[in-house]
Amino acid sequence: MRVVVAQETADGERRVAVVPETVATLTAAGCSVAVQAGAGLSAHVTDDELAARGADIVFERSQLLRSADVVLAVQPLPVGDVAQLAAGATTLSFLQPWVHGDTVRALAARSVTSFSLDLVPRLSRAQPMDALSSQALIAGYRAVLLAAATAPRMFPLFMTAAGTVAPVKLLVLGAGVAGLQAIATARRLGAVVSAYDVRAASADEVRSLGATFLDLGLDSQEGAGGYARVQSEDFLARQRDVIGEHVARSDIVVTTAAVPGRPAPRLVSADMVHAMRAGSVIVDLAAEGGGNCELTRAGESIDVGGVTIVGPRNAASAYPVHASALYARNVANLLLLLIRDGRLDPDWDDEVVADCCVTRSGEVMQP
Amino acid sequence: MRVVVAQETADGERRVAVVPETVATLTAAGCSVAVQAGAGLSAHVTDDELAARGADIVFERSQLLRSADVVLAVQPLPVGDVAQLAAGATTLSFLQPWVHGDTVRALAARSVTSFSLDLVPRLSRAQPMDALSSQALIAGYRAVLLAAATAPRMFPLFMTAAGTVAPVKLLVLGAGVAGLQAIATARRLGAVVSAYDVRAASADEVRSLGATFLDLGLDSQEGAGGYARVQSEDFLARQRDVIGEHVARSDIVVTTAAVPGRPAPRLVSADMVHAMRAGSVIVDLAAEGGGNCELTRAGESIDVGGVTIVGPRNAASAYPVHASALYARNVANLLLLLIRDGRLDPDWDDEVVADCCVTRSGEVMQP
Repeated sequence: MRVVVAQETADGERRVAVVPETVATLTAAGCSVAVQAGAGLSAHVTDDELAARGADIVFERSQLLRSADVVLAVQPLPVGDVAQLAAGATTLSFLQPWVHGDTVRALAARSVTSFSLDLVPRLSRAQPMDALSSQALIAGYRAVLLAAATAPRMFPLFMTAAGTVAPVKLLVLGAGVAGLQAIATARRLGAVVSAYDVRAASADEVRSLGATFLDLGLDSQEGAGGYARVQSEDFLARQRDVIGEHVARSDIVVTTAAVPGRPAPRLVSADMVHAMRAGSVIVDLAAEGGGNCELTRAGESIDVGGVTIVGPRNAASAYPVHASALYARNVANLLLLLIRDGRLDPDWDDEVVADCCVTRSGEVMQP
Repeated sequence: MRVVVAQETADGERRVAVVPETVATLTAAGCSVAVQAGAGLSAHVTDDELAARGADIVFERSQLLRSADVVLAVQPLPVGDVAQLAAGATTLSFLQPWVHGDTVRALAARSVTSFSLDLVPRLSRAQPMDALSSQALIAGYRAVLLAAATAPRMFPLFMTAAGTVAPVKLLVLGAGVAGLQAIATARRLGAVVSAYDVRAASADEVRSLGATFLDLGLDSQEGAGGYARVQSEDFLARQRDVIGEHVARSDIVVTTAAVPGRPAPRLVSADMVHAMRAGSVIVDLAAEGGGNCELTRAGESIDVGGVTIVGPRNAASAYPVHASALYARNVANLLLLLIRDGRLDPDWDDEVVADCCVTRSGEVMQP
């Protein structure tokens, strides 16, 4: 069974779906691994390191893709790559099928079996394959580093001979994996942190990291699978009033609220931004989904009356060494789940397998 | 006695020599304070905030300068500004007289009495005026934030369902105020830190911050005033051998070694850079003094075979809110030392006063 990894082609994508360690893992499971020359360089993984663990290094991309039983990738394959695959091949990548309809239709038309790491269910036995979580952890760390590098203030308390510097006040909106990591990183740097999430259950996690949980006195809004559910307009209006007051008092706001497959919830309005002090910073991790802040522009850093709004794209890719190491393990773990006796043999009755399958036998399996 | 602050004009300078708190301090000491309109904006200090504490806001710069008994500034005044001053006026700023000979001669020619915050001696009673230290603290923090934002690796240890991420190895060269703050900040972020300084006395400070001190088995090289002294060529050669080995093993190197008034010591050679792994990062805080690394270019971030070398200019200015707050207190404290009975009356027998005076009665007082 030939497992191949081609160079990622999306703008700004520095991650790679294989690292030396996972070449060894997959080889031990009976796969042969082939990697396009240079595919790991943006993540500081060299061809020599991959070859030393048993990978074939292939220079010609279409030859590589044509030979594949399985393709591992970070981003959805470009439609042109899908056309190179043998019918019956299998792909494992982030697919976000609600965004990449073209790729999904091309995969189905080619009778490619495809699995999306976006759709791995949040079960405890699926955690080793949970790439959304591993990458969200990195994004949460990135958001705080961006804030600390951008803000005109240092984060920690300093007591010096010239007097005391007060720590920054940092507010995290959304306390999922990214939000909790943002809280932890901001606390490491000495910020005074508060956080809010519609899921009241996150309050204990927030507090265990040394942050204050903003209790809005509203009902919890946890939905299926541990994600935040879509909110009513009435609830959102009440939430905005209370959040606005806390945003205005904060030096830094990091927003991380996302509902998979939906536009990002609007938590920070233009009015709230105008009420912030000059020199404040917002980092909006939901920028690519439309933004948690009304004024965010994805991929840009803008100034609105002295308030800097940073809308990073692909935040995890900023740390490609670790993002690739974790993602490569996630995708290798998912592939191992699909292999029995050295060949691909997915157990379609397994909830994990069924949930993350997007195309199979020429059909699109997701709504 | 009229104390004035004009807008800083140097490229990239975001600090300001006065904040609302020091307006109040100086007013209470019998001074009137006048500030050029907008001078504080880059540090997020508004004219209204300064006026509320008693400052006059003046729109016309040359009128402001002509009216001054005392000028407070961060950077040396441009020669054009010196020409506006009344003979007998007094200036307090960073002067680096070994760099800004033109300004020093202009100040002497104008019979301006000038004091340089660079030259405040390292005595414990002079600490409240020690702007080199207050700004070095900020620069050390900045260096690590730049490294953490630039590196392709996260700093902390992470234990996740997809396996463990090892913490970065960070080496700090030079363990003065900036180096110690770099160590503290890197430790906050979870890095494994080692450090080196020619002054063996710094070993205990390094260790008390949770870092490893590289003991080269060489004699201590502490010079006058607690600064590193200039080294012999022989010592430097031996030092390079030992440091090179540690540089090659580090993911991040932060260099902070400076000898005031001298070119920065060369600690990291081109060969050492070539021996580092791709994806490593060097932040060279001595960039403006010629660099501790042979390949550093001041004000640039360059790539040398996958190693990123960042050479920030004016690192403290990246956090202008806090840099200004501390600097404004330092310069106000120095001014208060020069005032007796509501008027300027420096005690020339005071070591602090004498050490930092650069020009007086038409003469240059420094070698």
